[in-house]
Amino acid sequence: MDKIIENLKVGILNNDIRSTAKLITMAENGDEKALNIVKDLYSKTGNAYIIGITGPPGVGKSTLTYRLVKELRDLGKKIGVIAIDPTSPFTGGAILGDRIRMSDLNMDSGVFIRSMGARGHLGGIGASTGVVIDILDIYGCDYILVETVGVGQSEVDIAKTCDTTLLVLGPGLGDDIQAIKAGIMEIGDVFVINKADREGSEKTAREIKMSLDFNYDPEGWNPPVDLAIASEGTGISKIIESIMEHRKFMTETENGLKRKIFNSKNKLISLIKEKMEKTLYEKTYNGNMLEILSEKVAKKELDPYTATKKIIEELYKK
Amino acid sequence: MDKIIENLKVGILNNDIRSTAKLITMAENGDEKALNIVKDLYSKTGNAYIIGITGPPGVGKSTLTYRLVKELRDLGKKIGVIAIDPTSPFTGGAILGDRIRMSDLNMDSGVFIRSMGARGHLGGIGASTGVVIDILDIYGCDYILVETVGVGQSEVDIAKTCDTTLLVLGPGLGDDIQAIKAGIMEIGDVFVINKADREGSEKTAREIKMSLDFNYDPEGWNPPVDLAIASEGTGISKIIESIMEHRKFMTETENGLKRKIFNSKNKLISLIKEKMEKTLYEKTYNGNMLEILSEKVAKKELDPYTATKKIIEELYKK
Repeated sequence: MDKIIENLKVGILNNDIRSTAKLITMAENGDEKALNIVKDLYSKTGNAYIIGITGPPGVGKSTLTYRLVKELRDLGKKIGVIAIDPTSPFTGGAILGDRIRMSDLNMDSGVFIRSMGARGHLGGIGASTGVVIDILDIYGCDYILVETVGVGQSEVDIAKTCDTTLLVLGPGLGDDIQAIKAGIMEIGDVFVINKADREGSEKTAREIKMSLDFNYDPEGWNPPVDLAIASEGTGISKIIESIMEHRKFMTETENGLKRKIFNSKNKLISLIKEKMEKTLYEKTYNGNMLEILSEKVAKKELDPYTATKKIIEELYKK
Repeated sequence: MDKIIENLKVGILNNDIRSTAKLITMAENGDEKALNIVKDLYSKTGNAYIIGITGPPGVGKSTLTYRLVKELRDLGKKIGVIAIDPTSPFTGGAILGDRIRMSDLNMDSGVFIRSMGARGHLGGIGASTGVVIDILDIYGCDYILVETVGVGQSEVDIAKTCDTTLLVLGPGLGDDIQAIKAGIMEIGDVFVINKADREGSEKTAREIKMSLDFNYDPEGWNPPVDLAIASEGTGISKIIESIMEHRKFMTETENGLKRKIFNSKNKLISLIKEKMEKTLYEKTYNGNMLEILSEKVAKKELDPYTATKKIIEELYKK
């Protein structure tokens, strides 16, 4: 076997941060060798618990993530953070003050932070995120926190592969609540109303509770609604408690297993999509097929449905 | 040929709204017959001009869409509206007042409104949206307005297939601007600062202009920044003017053609992805392969990479 690959394998198993970072970069680029390493070391996964943190922009997801990392570090846990939110200070977004405040995490060897751009990934961001999670799991993280903006489809799909997903909302009604009702309500295992010192927090919490009560399931998981002021560190312990309760549900109940199977299915679909798209690019790259047909379609010399058929035929050609 | 199919074909060509709605539903469900109708009638497309309207939640995209429809109707144009935004009054979101205000469009036979859920579509919402656009084009719409939330990856991909995309922003800095800088800046052909009566609008407009000036291209398209108060109908004519200017650029310049080829490519990729996913579901449906492997992965009896490989092999089996 390739010497470099062997070194990477040994490195990640020996807690080497540079090998881990290198492997992640390779995996993000869809490198087959990297995926094979992850496959070979897959038996080392299963230690990490994956926490999704999602919600609309501006509700303070990153500050909450920061506080959760701090609290879990105090418990002596090894933490991975994956930020896919373009407005997150972890990815270079947000205001400078936040970024400086959070930079102390970079000095902590027990925290591995990785930011990922939401675009330019084969098969969407979903597949890459799944592989990065596995790598951080092999690396020995106890908790992996994944921050996404919970508005887009791909981002919601990622939340659907996490063990516990926090849906973070700001106080006050309006568009946020509407967006939740319209579809992202079902992805929250724990609801967090952040910025709870602002007007309307109690009311928002009450409304969400009422809405959750409609779906009360004596056999299933019924999401708690926690209030927090992440900027001051208030309410963080209660959120950790809620996560632990949900973790208990996931590992000890029949319905928890069902949810795990659902998560695995979402992960498999992401991986399959990535693989299919990779094949698409490889097979059509030769002779610039995709570009040539796109030009014909743009010039109305060919309809897009016939063009699609031609490309699909090429794809399944041996 | 199937009698129902023949009737649908005749119906849509004769401006029949019920046939059009039926065909759209079939196409959304990935029905091959519907796709064949669109393919057969594809030569009838090319009349419609596609306008994307995107931006973060809460900036007033739907109100702006409503005003644009009204203005284009006054010019005697036939309009299609596709709403993929879960917070849009067109899709049943947003506050009741908005929904009532906009309901007068439903009474206008020159306006066809279709709302689409962002989830549960094979291959993502992108492919379905492309087909619905083609159907509304065949139906004879002069303009098709597509409203999406410009935060997620799939939603941005849709904007990338439109002829002209309006990027709508609210006044004031903060997260919005950060999100733009982080990646969605490039999708705006026309920038609209809505709610321009509020504090900070001029400053936001100035900042965006400055940022656009950095990328000034004497040969290319340089996006204008328009101010509007959609709720009062202020600034709408100027936006229409900007759209028309961009339309001129798209149809009369070499760079416009390049952009059209780029749009066609994005459309083809969406269609191919949909087709590949359909094959995935069909091939793995037999014997519940996806479910069985998901369970094995969840129980750690199999790694997801080997499971993916098995499914891909099944996929390419003749």
